[in-house]
Amino acid sequence: MRIVQKFGGTSVGSLERIRRTADLVQAEIGRGNEVAVVVSAMSGETNRLIGMARELSPAPAGREMDALVATGEQVTAALLSIELQARGIFAYSCSGAQAGFRTDSQHARARIKHIDSAHLIRHMQAGQVPVVTGFQGVDEHGNVTTLGRGGSDTSAVALAVAVKADVCDIYTDVDGVYTTDPRIVPRARKIDRISYEEMLEFASLGAKVLQTRSVELAMRYDMPIHLRSSFEPVPGTIVSREDDTMERAVISGVAYNRDEAKITIRGIPDHPGIAANVFGPVAEAAINVDVIVQNVSEQGYTDITFTVPRDDFGTTMDIMHKLCGEMQARDVLGDDTVAKVSVIGVGMRSHSGVAKKMFDVLAGEGINIQMISTSEIKITVVIDESQVDRAVQALHTAFGLDAEESEG
Amino acid sequence: MRIVQKFGGTSVGSLERIRRTADLVQAEIGRGNEVAVVVSAMSGETNRLIGMARELSPAPAGREMDALVATGEQVTAALLSIELQARGIFAYSCSGAQAGFRTDSQHARARIKHIDSAHLIRHMQAGQVPVVTGFQGVDEHGNVTTLGRGGSDTSAVALAVAVKADVCDIYTDVDGVYTTDPRIVPRARKIDRISYEEMLEFASLGAKVLQTRSVELAMRYDMPIHLRSSFEPVPGTIVSREDDTMERAVISGVAYNRDEAKITIRGIPDHPGIAANVFGPVAEAAINVDVIVQNVSEQGYTDITFTVPRDDFGTTMDIMHKLCGEMQARDVLGDDTVAKVSVIGVGMRSHSGVAKKMFDVLAGEGINIQMISTSEIKITVVIDESQVDRAVQALHTAFGLDAEESEG
Repeated sequence: MRIVQKFGGTSVGSLERIRRTADLVQAEIGRGNEVAVVVSAMSGETNRLIGMARELSPAPAGREMDALVATGEQVTAALLSIELQARGIFAYSCSGAQAGFRTDSQHARARIKHIDSAHLIRHMQAGQVPVVTGFQGVDEHGNVTTLGRGGSDTSAVALAVAVKADVCDIYTDVDGVYTTDPRIVPRARKIDRISYEEMLEFASLGAKVLQTRSVELAMRYDMPIHLRSSFEPVPGTIVSREDDTMERAVISGVAYNRDEAKITIRGIPDHPGIAANVFGPVAEAAINVDVIVQNVSEQGYTDITFTVPRDDFGTTMDIMHKLCGEMQARDVLGDDTVAKVSVIGVGMRSHSGVAKKMFDVLAGEGINIQMISTSEIKITVVIDESQVDRAVQALHTAFGLDAEESEG
Repeated sequence: MRIVQKFGGTSVGSLERIRRTADLVQAEIGRGNEVAVVVSAMSGETNRLIGMARELSPAPAGREMDALVATGEQVTAALLSIELQARGIFAYSCSGAQAGFRTDSQHARARIKHIDSAHLIRHMQAGQVPVVTGFQGVDEHGNVTTLGRGGSDTSAVALAVAVKADVCDIYTDVDGVYTTDPRIVPRARKIDRISYEEMLEFASLGAKVLQTRSVELAMRYDMPIHLRSSFEPVPGTIVSREDDTMERAVISGVAYNRDEAKITIRGIPDHPGIAANVFGPVAEAAINVDVIVQNVSEQGYTDITFTVPRDDFGTTMDIMHKLCGEMQARDVLGDDTVAKVSVIGVGMRSHSGVAKKMFDVLAGEGINIQMISTSEIKITVVIDESQVDRAVQALHTAFGLDAEESEG
């Protein structure tokens, strides 16, 4: 097998952790696998570097920030290479530039254009282990770029695709994806296999285990991701193309996000182009609108309700109050104590009645649904924040996800 | 004027120091000069990185150590660029690779082959300030290399040559070169101008102010170095080609080095090739032999005496005891309580009697001379370590270097 192993900041956060990470690399080599490694900066290091820059300047230039923080992964790559070499493994560190990660020039959020991977494949075939800095590359002018926070997952998947790996192992401090948050539902189960599409829905709901961008990339190139623990030597969750075994469960998991706010602009004189009028200024402020519902309120007037991240609530309300006057709408209402709860599963494509069951369960708990949004494999409701725990628990049980039932 | 400014580790050792260093750059820009900057790692950072590597491996590979420690200067270059930009100066950081420093592949002691400087000159002419990482480059394969400890001075001089600067300002925590150590002679004076040759002699005697290699490079390309304080805004010492004003003083300074040991191998059967026999094994052990004296002792036999750094005394004695048997010499004597004292000055080329005056002064102080070595611009004697202070004081006065006399 050819494997890319990716280790996050906590997995390389100290010399002791680097040694344990080296154990995990050594084990794969010992199994006869070809291995390339992608590493993050030692946990805390990126923030330390950013902190120094911010002390010097309120708005440091992106180019310099990228050059600065990119050193974090370079340190880790060198240290892990040194540790691997001390064990007799022919490892060598590569910066983003050395590994061949070519990106565009958008500092702090660069996109990978391509990876010159021929040399990496050649070295891996010869039993050598490239230890590549995650999160970074170079643009066509040789400037160091970074992919943005969490970009190391994306680096790892992109590298796995470029070297034609069989799997991309992403080691982290959790041991996989769960059917829901175990802090809310103690009987939550680890999911053995999940499809890219479902993983994307989980990620978009704030599951911090994998960066959305890395899953999108894995899906596009059909690169299986094995999300696993760097602390426990147990199988984690395989994120891969949908297959037969996945079809057994209608719902794979229940996700939630408390970090939501809801805004309604009422009594807008109805004519074409209203949505663009409303959401244009919000997009310009770089605020991500999520669930959107539009209704006719009375003849010739319409209401629009949408959600935004709670941090952006104040800014969005200011924009809407201004728009309300310009558009001669009646008024603006806001509520920053709402939350989203979703059921997710590729199985719902072939099973009708999932939505009805969800609404029945919530009604049975006396939970009022404020908004509904559906995709092919997800149903999301917006409810009052105070009712999240109860909603998640009831749905987890009702859809047969509790550990005892499914494993009995 | 076009200037390269170089700042060492203490000059960029904290954010506060980086701000003060930015003042010094800004001042040169304010004078209408074109400026490029070379920086070291923040003081302590290189040792911190090396310490981590050593904890992982007793003998980490040179390639990885270079990749690791090179991040130190990269952090400083980015931070100083950020600070300069916050003042409205168009500064930008360059790693060794980005600045165009091409070196050979000898990790930890790479030599600069050439610098692709066209882009730097173009940017400087446009009023931009390249902030270049000292101490590092890349080899032809793109591997990061370092020039070895203190290599930042060499980087600065090489850059000054490559961009055709008028002067290379090296900022440090001393304000120049002194006629001798002010701790021994309170009336020591700062030297305003000194020739490359004299500076080399001072440096070879352990004056830590400038790395020998950087002075050799400056001499080869006739690049004036202005050695000055980053704390005090006063002129320092200009190291440059010998000129008329330098000829006034016969002696520029008195230097000493306590870090010496003396070894004598006596009664060697005399035949051609003895010196090679004696010094071959010492060179193989990477020990630098300094002063060498060879005498005929009795018919058919010779004695050889030489000095080595005190740290290498034990190793060298072991080598000599072994050789003594092989060469059928009589015996080996060692003394690790000796020191060197030198008078240095280009003026002695045209003034006879300097050596005689030196020996007279030492004799007058009752100091026994154990060895003598001379070059065109330096006379060195080896004496007992306990007599160093007295020798330096007496010579400083006798050659007219004391502050009151010369400035009166």
